[in-house]
Amino acid sequence: MADTETHKAKMQKLQAEHRAKVAEAGDPERGLVLVHTGKGKGKSSSAFGVVVRAMGWRKSVGVVQFIKGNWITGERQFFERLGGVTWHTMGEGFTWDTQDRDRDIAAAQAAFAKAREMMQSGDFDLIVLDEINIALRYGYLSTEEVLEGLRARSDRTGVILTGRDAPSEICDYADLVTEMTEVKHPFQAGIKAQRGVDF
Amino acid sequence: MADTETHKAKMQKLQAEHRAKVAEAGDPERGLVLVHTGKGKGKSSSAFGVVVRAMGWRKSVGVVQFIKGNWITGERQFFERLGGVTWHTMGEGFTWDTQDRDRDIAAAQAAFAKAREMMQSGDFDLIVLDEINIALRYGYLSTEEVLEGLRARSDRTGVILTGRDAPSEICDYADLVTEMTEVKHPFQAGIKAQRGVDF
Repeated sequence: MADTETHKAKMQKLQAEHRAKVAEAGDPERGLVLVHTGKGKGKSSSAFGVVVRAMGWRKSVGVVQFIKGNWITGERQFFERLGGVTWHTMGEGFTWDTQDRDRDIAAAQAAFAKAREMMQSGDFDLIVLDEINIALRYGYLSTEEVLEGLRARSDRTGVILTGRDAPSEICDYADLVTEMTEVKHPFQAGIKAQRGVDF
Repeated sequence: MADTETHKAKMQKLQAEHRAKVAEAGDPERGLVLVHTGKGKGKSSSAFGVVVRAMGWRKSVGVVQFIKGNWITGERQFFERLGGVTWHTMGEGFTWDTQDRDRDIAAAQAAFAKAREMMQSGDFDLIVLDEINIALRYGYLSTEEVLEGLRARSDRTGVILTGRDAPSEICDYADLVTEMTEVKHPFQAGIKAQRGVDF
């Protein structure tokens, strides 16, 4: 009997907390800045999971990908078919096969200019800057210009920055930093990457 | 010039790796078992990001949620509107407000029976067992029965188990274990949970 009472009390507390959360939440006072970093998997996919969550609440979402525009991924195919997400990839309009560093820098700059415009526009509840940490690591973008863009964002707009080795200044500015750590990886066991799981 | 050569060589290597990955991947030899655990955010949302990735490749996906069936989340609304995902939540058909431990155990057992059936059916490429680690922690399910269900899965079927404090036996069995660690959290700054980001 005592166990049932304790259990009941616990569940009532959990329910009350969830109800309070739903009741309070409403529109955010300020869109938060989230960073997903670390060596483990899940940095980008958790950002896309938040996209799905936001779209479930009919929020307005944009994605800017700082990876080569032509790379085929499941998430890109999914959102292209679905529609309703403003999607930009680095290298759109560029001949990305030339593998020229200057061209890559120009492509990243163009992508970030787009991102900055989207962040300031007031049109978006959520913007994902996917793999932007890679662009920062390669020196295609400077930490300062990214921070300026984040500071200048509309109050409405939350931003998620993904990728390994997020610069410490970005982490310091962010409201939430999540690190994905790989405890175990199938590649170590010689298992090949799988379409629909890894990309 | 030397920098451009090095950059070009690096990019060529990256492209070649990605092409090889896409070319090799095809259908998985065996669906993998992934665990998303840890105290940080992103455990469930990264599973839903993988769902989106899999659906982009037109894979067949199912979700079983080991949380109260009536809780409103963005991802649930999203996938219900979208269709095409087989979705089950714990407590369907139960009067979950009674907060009776025995009833919660029965609800979790019923949800896992459904999950087991789905895993063995051969109909799914990916199944997400969302927050199953919570059900394990509360003792609603035993580690052994979950392992049995995983072992009995169809070769086609990959499984993602999410939730804090994944039991070590499950982690040992899994092919990939990712731990989400919170480096910084807005709740610490007194910022309220946000609809579309946190749930």
